[in-house]
Amino acid sequence: MKLYVGIDLGGTNIGAGIVDGDGNILIKGEVATGASRPFEEVIEDMAGLIEDLMEQGEYTISDIEAIGIGSPGSIDREKGVVVSANNLGWRYAPVREELQKHIDLPVYLENDANVAGLAESVAGVCKGAKNSVTITLGTGVGSGIIIDGKPYIGSHGVGAELGHIIVHVDGIQCNCGNKGCLERYASATALIREGRKAAEENPNSLIAKSVDGDLDKINAKVVIDAAKAGDEKALEIFETYIYYLTMGIVTTVNMLDPSVIAIGGGVSRAGDFLLDALRESVAEHTFYKDIESSNIYLSELGNDAGIIGAAMLGSIK
Amino acid sequence: MKLYVGIDLGGTNIGAGIVDGDGNILIKGEVATGASRPFEEVIEDMAGLIEDLMEQGEYTISDIEAIGIGSPGSIDREKGVVVSANNLGWRYAPVREELQKHIDLPVYLENDANVAGLAESVAGVCKGAKNSVTITLGTGVGSGIIIDGKPYIGSHGVGAELGHIIVHVDGIQCNCGNKGCLERYASATALIREGRKAAEENPNSLIAKSVDGDLDKINAKVVIDAAKAGDEKALEIFETYIYYLTMGIVTTVNMLDPSVIAIGGGVSRAGDFLLDALRESVAEHTFYKDIESSNIYLSELGNDAGIIGAAMLGSIK
Repeated sequence: MKLYVGIDLGGTNIGAGIVDGDGNILIKGEVATGASRPFEEVIEDMAGLIEDLMEQGEYTISDIEAIGIGSPGSIDREKGVVVSANNLGWRYAPVREELQKHIDLPVYLENDANVAGLAESVAGVCKGAKNSVTITLGTGVGSGIIIDGKPYIGSHGVGAELGHIIVHVDGIQCNCGNKGCLERYASATALIREGRKAAEENPNSLIAKSVDGDLDKINAKVVIDAAKAGDEKALEIFETYIYYLTMGIVTTVNMLDPSVIAIGGGVSRAGDFLLDALRESVAEHTFYKDIESSNIYLSELGNDAGIIGAAMLGSIK
Repeated sequence: MKLYVGIDLGGTNIGAGIVDGDGNILIKGEVATGASRPFEEVIEDMAGLIEDLMEQGEYTISDIEAIGIGSPGSIDREKGVVVSANNLGWRYAPVREELQKHIDLPVYLENDANVAGLAESVAGVCKGAKNSVTITLGTGVGSGIIIDGKPYIGSHGVGAELGHIIVHVDGIQCNCGNKGCLERYASATALIREGRKAAEENPNSLIAKSVDGDLDKINAKVVIDAAKAGDEKALEIFETYIYYLTMGIVTTVNMLDPSVIAIGGGVSRAGDFLLDALRESVAEHTFYKDIESSNIYLSELGNDAGIIGAAMLGSIK
């Protein structure tokens, strides 16, 4: 069986793994990205990590079919270039060309949200689904759309930006320039924003107390834990969050009607508390109640999704 | 060259045509639907129309590859059944089975909005585009999504319902059960609703005058013509209309990033007045301003789209 290298390129760490064709990680490791260094040094360390893993696993280059890289930001897939990635500080970084100076294998690049969607489609909760959408609820809202088993990226490579579908005309200003994008309401950042506001307004609330009044410590988990504990204000924030996320999912269902919608990212660690509320809310707002609709699950692969999905870029080419 | 029969099944008329593989109509005709009659009689007339056209054009059954039917409502493609179509008054109508009693050819069914999208993709303004979306602005807002040259219908056949993406959380109540669907703001019905309201409030407005005060005569054309003539209130309605339609298109672009977006349906007869305003507005709200984005055009095929797209169902199978 041919093997694949998957690279999860992040602002803090570079994760790498050797993965089989079914999406099983055989061996993995990571190094610090050190993104402020010259780009060439980062890629040199990336190559070193791959070589270390091959040595540890006793694989040779002939065992490996290709290297796939999931990167934040915008990507030129044909040229193998990271066009712009703010949290790496890179613009027009020729990743493929630089990596191939060290390792002579095909190198595929893809956006990290699309890679996560591919991972869930090959080896996670969307396995076997023809069409699926993986929504990543983190600092922003990312998404990977899989159609017929392949990442759908659109005609100019900028599709699958579920975070920037507009759910509220003239709503909250988004950093994309528009107003009312889903990301403004359904990201961890939205929970934090609303949690801080609530804690400021009511210093005796559970949210404020659970961070000893240090509002900078409020994260999505703090808000959701307070909601789980029954705090009224936190529950209100959580319900609004679920409502907006539902509207984004309704739009996704009415447009793409996927078999499976997978919910990943930091907020998804809220587990069944999130999933149950979301399923109930989406069911309430589904148009065709008499036919089967998209199933909603929590994504399965967690942090490994980046490595697995990147590796699978080589297997779907 | 193999030929195809395309049927445009409407509440008022049944249109039919014999179409070549490039989407050119060689001969066409129509009969009244008479939807209130027994279903079997409607299909008998449909078969009669097809046979008439074949006779007139001197085609034999061996010249025809298949019959495609574009139907309103929801469709069971596998079984060839119209599951539910309000403006035909049909529920679970076995169209394929009934038609094949008269003509022994493969019969394909598809939703009429998807068929219109396919027509534009094969022979209209989306020709050559890998991915396209045709948006039909009529009584409702319909859409046909073409991905890789084929209608994209989703995993349960209910995708491509652009009219029911949510653009305004808690907005106007829609007959689908949700609030704030695009259809409530971007259909001809929305223009009529706002036009009537304006005429009621101001009987001296151009909208009211152009129908001699008979508000029931206000249609989309009346409102748009008043806007074209510079009437302040009509322009305000038109600008709001364009704004909401823009938000729906921004969502479409950020999700699907198609090569082409085609605008069809009754409202599209406003021509360049609509197109220019829409293009300007969408460009203003596009995120990636430095790369090529979806081109917006008016759809080309008009009423023939139904026949052409239905016929092409046979050619893409």
